[in-house]
Amino acid sequence: MRAPGGEVVITGGLGFIGSHLVDAYLAAGHRVRIIDSNAGAVIDGEDYDADPRCAVVRERVEDYLAAGGDFAGVDRVIHAASYVGPASILSRAGRLGHDIIGSTAPVIEACMNAGTPLCVFSSAEVYGRSGVLDEKDDIVVPTQYNTRIEYAVAKTLAEAMVCNSRRHGLRGIVIRPFNVAGARQSRAGGFVMPTFVQQALAGRPITVFAGGEQIRAFIAAGDLTGFLTGYMDLALQGDEVIINVGNPANAVTIMDLAERVKNLLASPSPIVRVDGRSVHGPHYAEAESFHKIPALRAATGLGWRPRIPLDELILSTADYYRAREDRRAVNAPL
Amino acid sequence: MRAPGGEVVITGGLGFIGSHLVDAYLAAGHRVRIIDSNAGAVIDGEDYDADPRCAVVRERVEDYLAAGGDFAGVDRVIHAASYVGPASILSRAGRLGHDIIGSTAPVIEACMNAGTPLCVFSSAEVYGRSGVLDEKDDIVVPTQYNTRIEYAVAKTLAEAMVCNSRRHGLRGIVIRPFNVAGARQSRAGGFVMPTFVQQALAGRPITVFAGGEQIRAFIAAGDLTGFLTGYMDLALQGDEVIINVGNPANAVTIMDLAERVKNLLASPSPIVRVDGRSVHGPHYAEAESFHKIPALRAATGLGWRPRIPLDELILSTADYYRAREDRRAVNAPL
Repeated sequence: MRAPGGEVVITGGLGFIGSHLVDAYLAAGHRVRIIDSNAGAVIDGEDYDADPRCAVVRERVEDYLAAGGDFAGVDRVIHAASYVGPASILSRAGRLGHDIIGSTAPVIEACMNAGTPLCVFSSAEVYGRSGVLDEKDDIVVPTQYNTRIEYAVAKTLAEAMVCNSRRHGLRGIVIRPFNVAGARQSRAGGFVMPTFVQQALAGRPITVFAGGEQIRAFIAAGDLTGFLTGYMDLALQGDEVIINVGNPANAVTIMDLAERVKNLLASPSPIVRVDGRSVHGPHYAEAESFHKIPALRAATGLGWRPRIPLDELILSTADYYRAREDRRAVNAPL
Repeated sequence: MRAPGGEVVITGGLGFIGSHLVDAYLAAGHRVRIIDSNAGAVIDGEDYDADPRCAVVRERVEDYLAAGGDFAGVDRVIHAASYVGPASILSRAGRLGHDIIGSTAPVIEACMNAGTPLCVFSSAEVYGRSGVLDEKDDIVVPTQYNTRIEYAVAKTLAEAMVCNSRRHGLRGIVIRPFNVAGARQSRAGGFVMPTFVQQALAGRPITVFAGGEQIRAFIAAGDLTGFLTGYMDLALQGDEVIINVGNPANAVTIMDLAERVKNLLASPSPIVRVDGRSVHGPHYAEAESFHKIPALRAATGLGWRPRIPLDELILSTADYYRAREDRRAVNAPL
């Protein structure tokens, strides 16, 4: 990093990944400017309001920039703001593409104007139904478009915009996170880990979608933030713009995850197979990738390794939700 | 059409495809509102200014709508405005995604608000390096992003936004045109037909890129506009949202096209192989598809057929450029 204590802008800093990034950069000695529209906030942000090292701007980053905000003097910008979650995005059908591009484009422009390095969050969803999930692979896009595919194509376009903006001097990288999990993740977006954990804690049925044979590899939010606080400078100096961040060692079928959550938390919950559409409505769609295991190449090439095992992820999620309600899902039945 | 004489909005109506659409809708008895930023204009539009059936708004459609413009009472909207051409797009690297999505999103929204049917122009470029070019096929996106791929992904996202907006009541279709050609097409964007024709007329070398073995199928602008004036209502009633419009009967290698142009125009021009990058700069990229021949299914299923043969296309382009300069390329060497 340029200077200890330099200011980091984190869009979506009140969201799940964003708030972990805020904590990690604060712990690394930075000041943090959070810009968050509250659309995906998992915390109220009052602790950050009270922290002299933080500034919290509660609006969309595109509105912030359109009103004259800029990134002058900022050490780096992490653009983590996005609609996320297979259930949350459904209400944005047809508008999601513009939601994502309309916020990413002005962030890129403002970073170029200020000479500030940028990290944009893409998604493992970009791989669509591609088989092996390596950064160099072609992406296969099914054209029976649903909202999930609109999301994936928008993230792909944001990636291309970052890559091509380097020609105009942008210093930027793109992260493709694979199934990040941990404390604060809300079940409201349709995320499986907090759903299973909250169901297990409440003794409610653990609901497995799509048969449960699909494989996901969960990475701890702390491992992801460790990549950015520890390796982003190195990444900016390298040739790889697109970087998978995930933890293949935590690969598990969703049915196995359900059983592991149940056993670890000593829960009486039955495990039941259900159709996701019966929970999230007729437009809900499963991921195109049945086996979503990251190939790590760019990130490990820089020396980064994920460390936190699956059981610890389950337990930290459970600790969090033993102590409090799921703020975004507080009125939704489990 | 709802009523003879109903008003049609055509964005990009001073561009190549757009101006042919204007003429076709005028000929079919409509009034036309042209909204054009002048970014890709091939004509000055003074004839339309003087025509009582036309209104010409010279600004970007997103600015027009942001300033309070709307489509109330409009019979249909044809969104043809776009940066086009493999050379023209290069200066928009990194910004092209937002150029395309930032104009398409408000057009979709305004059509939903007004209840007006919409046709959005996508591009055969979306197929990327896919093999067979059928509307139902998956799209393969190479992730060594260049500006051409940014263009293709943005068009793919625009398609997904139209498809998913139907859930909110949009009546809309998407056209994927394959190598449209004819009078008024400028060589400035890097289009091969007007380049070859103007080179042949001037006795300058006809410059064949990439070896000349790549196959393209050229469709006359008049065949394309005939689909919209004759079959759009039928298309809106059907299930196919994405519609290829091209003319496989006009498939030709680029080397054969060069020879055909030379012979038809009795030109003394030599035919030379060159690297496109020596003409358009180091960032110029060839299309991912080597054989770009449309599979026609949705459009022919409605009864439409392309009719105009390749020779007629070459001759009408030559007639146009015998009578006048290429307005967009007037200062560029051939």
